[in-house]
Order: sequence, then C-alpha cells, then structure tokens
Amino acid sequence: MTEKDLIRSLTANLHTDDTVMVGAGDDCAVLKFGNQELLFKTDAIVEGVHFDSNAAPDKIGHKALARALSDIAAMGGTPCHCLITMGTNPEIKIGYIEKVYEGLKKCAENHNVNIVGGETTTMANFTLSVSLLGTAEKAITRSGSIPGDAIFVTGELGGSITKHHLQFQPRVEQGQWLAKNFDIHAMIDLSDGLASDLRCLLTSEIGSEIHTNSLPVSKAARQLAQNNPSGKTPILAALTDGEDYELLFSLPSKFAVSLHDAWKKTFPELSLKCIGRITEEPGITLKDDKGRHSLNVYGYDHIQKP
Amino acid sequence: MTEKDLIRSLTANLHTDDTVMVGAGDDCAVLKFGNQELLFKTDAIVEGVHFDSNAAPDKIGHKALARALSDIAAMGGTPCHCLITMGTNPEIKIGYIEKVYEGLKKCAENHNVNIVGGETTTMANFTLSVSLLGTAEKAITRSGSIPGDAIFVTGELGGSITKHHLQFQPRVEQGQWLAKNFDIHAMIDLSDGLASDLRCLLTSEIGSEIHTNSLPVSKAARQLAQNNPSGKTPILAALTDGEDYELLFSLPSKFAVSLHDAWKKTFPELSLKCIGRITEEPGITLKDDKGRHSLNVYGYDHIQKP
Repeated sequence: MTEKDLIRSLTANLHTDDTVMVGAGDDCAVLKFGNQELLFKTDAIVEGVHFDSNAAPDKIGHKALARALSDIAAMGGTPCHCLITMGTNPEIKIGYIEKVYEGLKKCAENHNVNIVGGETTTMANFTLSVSLLGTAEKAITRSGSIPGDAIFVTGELGGSITKHHLQFQPRVEQGQWLAKNFDIHAMIDLSDGLASDLRCLLTSEIGSEIHTNSLPVSKAARQLAQNNPSGKTPILAALTDGEDYELLFSLPSKFAVSLHDAWKKTFPELSLKCIGRITEEPGITLKDDKGRHSLNVYGYDHIQKP
Repeated sequence: MTEKDLIRSLTANLHTDDTVMVGAGDDCAVLKFGNQELLFKTDAIVEGVHFDSNAAPDKIGHKALARALSDIAAMGGTPCHCLITMGTNPEIKIGYIEKVYEGLKKCAENHNVNIVGGETTTMANFTLSVSLLGTAEKAITRSGSIPGDAIFVTGELGGSITKHHLQFQPRVEQGQWLAKNFDIHAMIDLSDGLASDLRCLLTSEIGSEIHTNSLPVSKAARQLAQNNPSGKTPILAALTDGEDYELLFSLPSKFAVSLHDAWKKTFPELSLKCIGRITEEPGITLKDDKGRHSLNVYGYDHIQKP
C-alpha cells in the first residue's frame, strides 16, 4: 500500500460539514470562513528522509516552511500564519536549533507570514512540522481540467536533490498572479515528480499528452546524466525526480499565447513552458519525434526511456 | 535550558502583524479574521514519550486530538477543523493505524470537528501531530488575573498516568460555558501539573495562595500513594502530576458563589473547586492547617511535602 493509498483509505468517508469546501486530498484544505476561503495545510520534514544530517540548518528551516508555502501557492492563495512543531533530542545542540529558526524566520518574513507559536517535543530524528494558514478569493483545486486544456509548468525540472530541494523559492507570487489573471482550471505543486503529480489532475475520464521535447529540463538533471551515463536520462529525470516545487496547471488552450506574453513581462526570469494538453484518453501519453509512448500507470521504475 | 525557555528564546522578537492578537506563549494563537477570532493550535504525541507502545491504538488517536481540544477549551473556544500528521514506519501495521484513526474520528465526531486532511511521513517512533482550528467570540488568555481573584479548577487532579491521560474528556463545553457566562480573567488547561501551569497565570507582580486542603485529589492519586507509601503524597501528586487536562482559571471572588451554584446545575457530574486566590505577593504559597509554605520557584522535586 502506498502512502497515497493509505491516506485515501484513512480519510475515506470522513464526515465533514458544509463549511468544508475542500477536504482531504488536495494541496490544502479549503474552509469557508465568513465570506473568505481559508487554506489550511500541514507538512513535516524529517532528518534522513527529507534532508541529510549534514544539511545547513538554516536551509532546513527554509525548506520546512517553503514546502508548505508551495502548497498554498498551488491553490493561488496568500499565506498568513504558521505554527512550528519541532521534534528534537538531547544530541541536537541549541545553536543548531537557533540556526534552523533563522532559516524559518527569514522565509516567513520574505512571504509576510507570521510565526504565531510552536512547540518542541522529543523525537529520535530531527523533525520540523509546519502548520500553515492562508486565504484565497477562490482557491484553485486539482480538479477541473477538461480535454483540450493546455498544460503548463513553471521553472525547470529534475535534479533537485543536488541543491534545489533545500533552497527553492515557492511560487507563491506566481500562483496568486495566475489565479487572479487567468482562468486556471486546475493546479498542483510538483513534489513527487511531474509524472506522479500530473496524475492528481487526471481522472478515469481524462488523461494527458506530454511532449517530452518541450520539458524544461534543469541544468542539474543534465549534469547528473553527464556524470552518470548509465543513470536516468535528463528527460526521465524531469519526468520522475521529486521536489521540484514548481507549479503545474491547466487552462483553456485559447489563453496559451496571452498567458505566455503576460508571463514574460511579469516574471521575465522564470521559465514557463507549455508541455502538453489534457486529452479524452485516460492515462499519460508521452510524445516525441519518434512517436507516442504510454506511461506505466503504477510505477515509474518501469518506465520506457523515451 | 527547559523546553519552555527554549521556545521562549526561539519565539522572542518574532515580527508579527496586527492580525495576530495572541502569538506564541498561550494555549493557542489568536488571529483576527474578519470580525471573528480564529484559534490556531498544534500538538504532537510521540510513542515512548506521551504513550507506551502497549497503549490501545484507538486511545492514542483519542488522546492526540483531545489534547489539542483541551487547549481550545482553555480559551473558551469552539473547535472546528483539524489536520492529522502521522509519523509511522514499516513495523507499524495498517490495522494499528486504522484503529488509531478510529479513535481520532470518534473524538472528532463527539466535538463536531472536521478532519480535513492529513499526511503520513516516516518516523522512528509512532507520532501523531494534530493541527486544530477553532473560533472564539473573545478568547480567554493566560494573562489578566488580578489580586483578589478566586482560583478555580475543574475535575480531580493527580495520578493521570494510570488511566486518565489516555481517555480524558477535554473540557470544551465547560470552557465555552465559562467564557459565555462569567467574567473569567485568565484560563489555562492543566498539562504539566497544577504547580507548573499555575505559574503561567502569574507574573512578577502577582502570585497565588493555594489551600492544599481544598485540592480535588483524584482517586487514582490516593491509590498510587496507598500502594507506594514512600512515593508522592496524594496532595503532592495533585500539585505536580501532569496530564490532568482540567481547566484552571481565575475570576473576581465576588462571583465565586454564583459560579458554584450555576455550575452545579449545569455540570452536576463534574467537580469544580475554589482552591485559592491571586495575591500581590509573587510566587506560589501553599496554605494548610499547619501554616504557609513557599513553593520552590524552579523545581518541584525539591518541594517540601505539606
């Protein structure tokens, strides 16, 4: 049973009242609160799982909050308040914890987020769990794509493990801008890898066609492939590497050109690429100069290299 | 450095904007949200720290949520939405996790709380962290007591370790009722023990006098003392044992009698005791038939048994 299956099973048939607009299963919960939409998210990172013990502590603090911010970004929301839960143990020095907090505070300040409390508890591995609140005029969920929609992705993909995963900038401003200016049908942030996260936008009724030649492959992914020719190809890395923390979204293809133009003026330093479209055929199809390939539904270890 | 000192140091000089009515250092954060007050709390329990590996899994689920509910209760609030973070590992069976969730769901249903999402992550010790939102018309904080106020406590104290800590009922209804009907000056829920938590209501300007003969000592604390005559006396247990999850609060002494009368009619099955008063003399003074004792400021190991 995968993590997603387990959560899906545990949170199935949860009774929620009509103030819950979006419950378990999206980037954030969306809650009706007066005439506003409140976004509510929690995310934890654990030493040995999400970062190595030799990672710089301020970057660990940054990463913990930035991951949760990325989920608010994926709904087009504005983050506002967070609580920090820290799992530590007597072997962790106070100076280390203070540097972790420096990273947290700097990231919070950069995004106008108030740190409104926290607790520490004893844990074998150093752990940071962030609870984050945000607001949205109209939250963008993972559902809502329709066949014909263009699929876009921000930034560059793959090879995050070398550096990006500890110092990425969550696309909060971009998410807000997209939600405000365009008819975005669905959006998600890339944490598990494009091929995996893209499925969250799809259903048994709709699929997608991805043009592998259009994928914005990162320099890091190219270098990793160069250093290890028997490893992943850069395109496979862009499809399957985790922790990109970029935005993946769909919108009616008629807006693709105007989106591109407006984006270039607003965010000239950040790439935005149309990588494919939503189709009536379920699943993910990869397309390149040589033809079309079907992406295995259940796992990416078995993917045929394009 | 104690946990409280560490958190105080980390959260000192946090920049927060004017939507933060109460930040770090109270039972919950209090956030201005439109014309409502939003309560925001996170609390984690860890195997080996907050429960033994042989504890019934549904009770672990209950405890995780009930602890956070107790903090909402301490502010006179109404809980509404929660997120569950679960730290687990391959040795934990799915059946165990499902039973934990049963306990969570039942507790949530009993208090009209929506479970709106969750995540799982890998952790060495089984861990549940709960993020909880609530609302309040006017949240009651830990500050606000003045000399002369009567100090009350709900329920019975001490010996929680034998059973109570896994199956207590958070005093949500009582907290709301108190906030609505009486001029409560300050309130806190008892998690670290009366003598420790009471200090959170005090300052360098005000102290308290506690009448040890009035302390509502639990049956469990009496039995523990009977079984182990060289251990804590029942009164010392009531003063220093943790995890009572009862409400401790102060209000003007002129309302003490009317509170008692109204309480008996509303909550006939739950004890409410006046245990002392707020004084101009700082610190905690214990009073019994034999005289007055000063409670050591820095530790309860060294307390003179009354």
